[in-house]
Amino acid sequence: MSFVTLQERINTLQNPTVVGLDPDLQHIPPQILEKHIAELGENLDAAARAVIEFNMNLIEALHDIVPAVKPQAAYYEILGAHGIQALKLTCDYARSKGMYVIIDAKRGDIGSVAETYSEAYLGTIKVGSAEYAPFNADALTVNTYLGSDGIKPFIDTAKKHDKAIFALVKTSNPSSGEIQDKMVNKPPIHLYQAVGEMLEDISDDTIDKNGYTCAGAVVGATYPEELSRLRKKLKHTFFLVPGYGAQGGTAENVKGAFDENGNGAIINSSRGIIAAWKKENAHYADAARKEALSMRDELRKVLDL
Amino acid sequence: MSFVTLQERINTLQNPTVVGLDPDLQHIPPQILEKHIAELGENLDAAARAVIEFNMNLIEALHDIVPAVKPQAAYYEILGAHGIQALKLTCDYARSKGMYVIIDAKRGDIGSVAETYSEAYLGTIKVGSAEYAPFNADALTVNTYLGSDGIKPFIDTAKKHDKAIFALVKTSNPSSGEIQDKMVNKPPIHLYQAVGEMLEDISDDTIDKNGYTCAGAVVGATYPEELSRLRKKLKHTFFLVPGYGAQGGTAENVKGAFDENGNGAIINSSRGIIAAWKKENAHYADAARKEALSMRDELRKVLDL
Repeated sequence: MSFVTLQERINTLQNPTVVGLDPDLQHIPPQILEKHIAELGENLDAAARAVIEFNMNLIEALHDIVPAVKPQAAYYEILGAHGIQALKLTCDYARSKGMYVIIDAKRGDIGSVAETYSEAYLGTIKVGSAEYAPFNADALTVNTYLGSDGIKPFIDTAKKHDKAIFALVKTSNPSSGEIQDKMVNKPPIHLYQAVGEMLEDISDDTIDKNGYTCAGAVVGATYPEELSRLRKKLKHTFFLVPGYGAQGGTAENVKGAFDENGNGAIINSSRGIIAAWKKENAHYADAARKEALSMRDELRKVLDL
Repeated sequence: MSFVTLQERINTLQNPTVVGLDPDLQHIPPQILEKHIAELGENLDAAARAVIEFNMNLIEALHDIVPAVKPQAAYYEILGAHGIQALKLTCDYARSKGMYVIIDAKRGDIGSVAETYSEAYLGTIKVGSAEYAPFNADALTVNTYLGSDGIKPFIDTAKKHDKAIFALVKTSNPSSGEIQDKMVNKPPIHLYQAVGEMLEDISDDTIDKNGYTCAGAVVGATYPEELSRLRKKLKHTFFLVPGYGAQGGTAENVKGAFDENGNGAIINSSRGIIAAWKKENAHYADAARKEALSMRDELRKVLDL
């Protein structure tokens, strides 16, 4: 179903990369913000317009070599309603350029609230007889702490609209183990493994022609052994792998995320690509493209592509 | 620190209640939406204006008897940028009426992303030399699956701005036990207890004059035994208790959430109050006030107020 289009795009470009669009104002070249401030004043509208310009130029520079983008919701929410408009325009523009759009919002709630979140990002809302798709993303990241009834509404919405989710299984941060590595069940397994198995279990009616359900998993590049072990256990789960680059993960570290055909995973880099201009003394779009090509080539090497 | 103002307001009104502002379009009397559609058309702007009108009239009807409101972010996000503007105006109006505002967004992420979420909802952002508080809520709900480095940035921001958080410990939904009730550690305890203890641990430098840190916990009314047990264990943790009313929790069920002085907890009801008009054949604001008074009186009874 829904990861089919992502896998096709990855195969066409021979590049299993997603670029994280995390437009912290610190990552945007100062002259862009200054230009919009000169026009609109020092306000959230000007900041949001700087974000839009930055993202659109990045998408323009990357869409023919990178299959997907992952806007990180926090950086849009901090700009209020203007930021949300920037998020919507970013999603629309990326899709118009053929990119797969993963909104990284890590939403998690129960019942009708979970349903509302999932319809907000992946689906639609009716106002009178008119229907709107507020963001129309292809996939959404989802938190798993609330258990299966916090995840099923997202899976149901994904099924309904032929979209997908990525649920948190083993995250890339140093203290992820405090919760996720706890030993549970008998015989004992790590909590993250139990979460991964539950995820595969509640989505097993959505397996696509490549063997993957619509409920993918977030598994960090910073834990390569866990990544390889999970790949073997969760044969039907597509992986979104953060932690490459700025967080320390290498191409060798993420090799274990892929199945025997080199499918079933996509590797994220955010700052490493979008803020490459800080190290390269080049236009930010050129610097991002250069860095994305270098990441693609690193991944191709370990995947024998 | 930050729960001091909430406790004061609770004591003044003798009412430990928070009303959940979950403006699902289904919960809003149809004539309100129709009026805005007549003016603006069938679009998200009209829907957002219906939400604003509904919320403002509820706040007007409740602010002298209820100390706090808890807007549920999902119902605003599904209306896109217009919905986020409605969320901001709702927060501003509630605060102007003296209410304590808890944004229920269950955000969870790591490092600079967690910092950005926390500044978005509790703090500020600088654009050039100007500083903006996008939402300026008093408290924010936070997910705990990512471990302490996913929670500390929220606590740091809360400290900086004299605000607070409520982190998910034991949620009210039927399947919360799948993750949160797992037995962990030696000697074995439930995961939710380990999470609660970690929370108290990483916030113990913020204990206020009432004995509470700025890092509260979400503990569901639907698990009264767990609630009482946690109250005894987590002596410095303020509780936000969902699950009262529509989800099945009673005043007797939540008695165990309070400390020996009747402090340290606030009980949420959402649909039960804001959608009371559906059962009562009265104006929604009057129906909500009547229901809120009845909930207050139930709670006063079990708390001997």
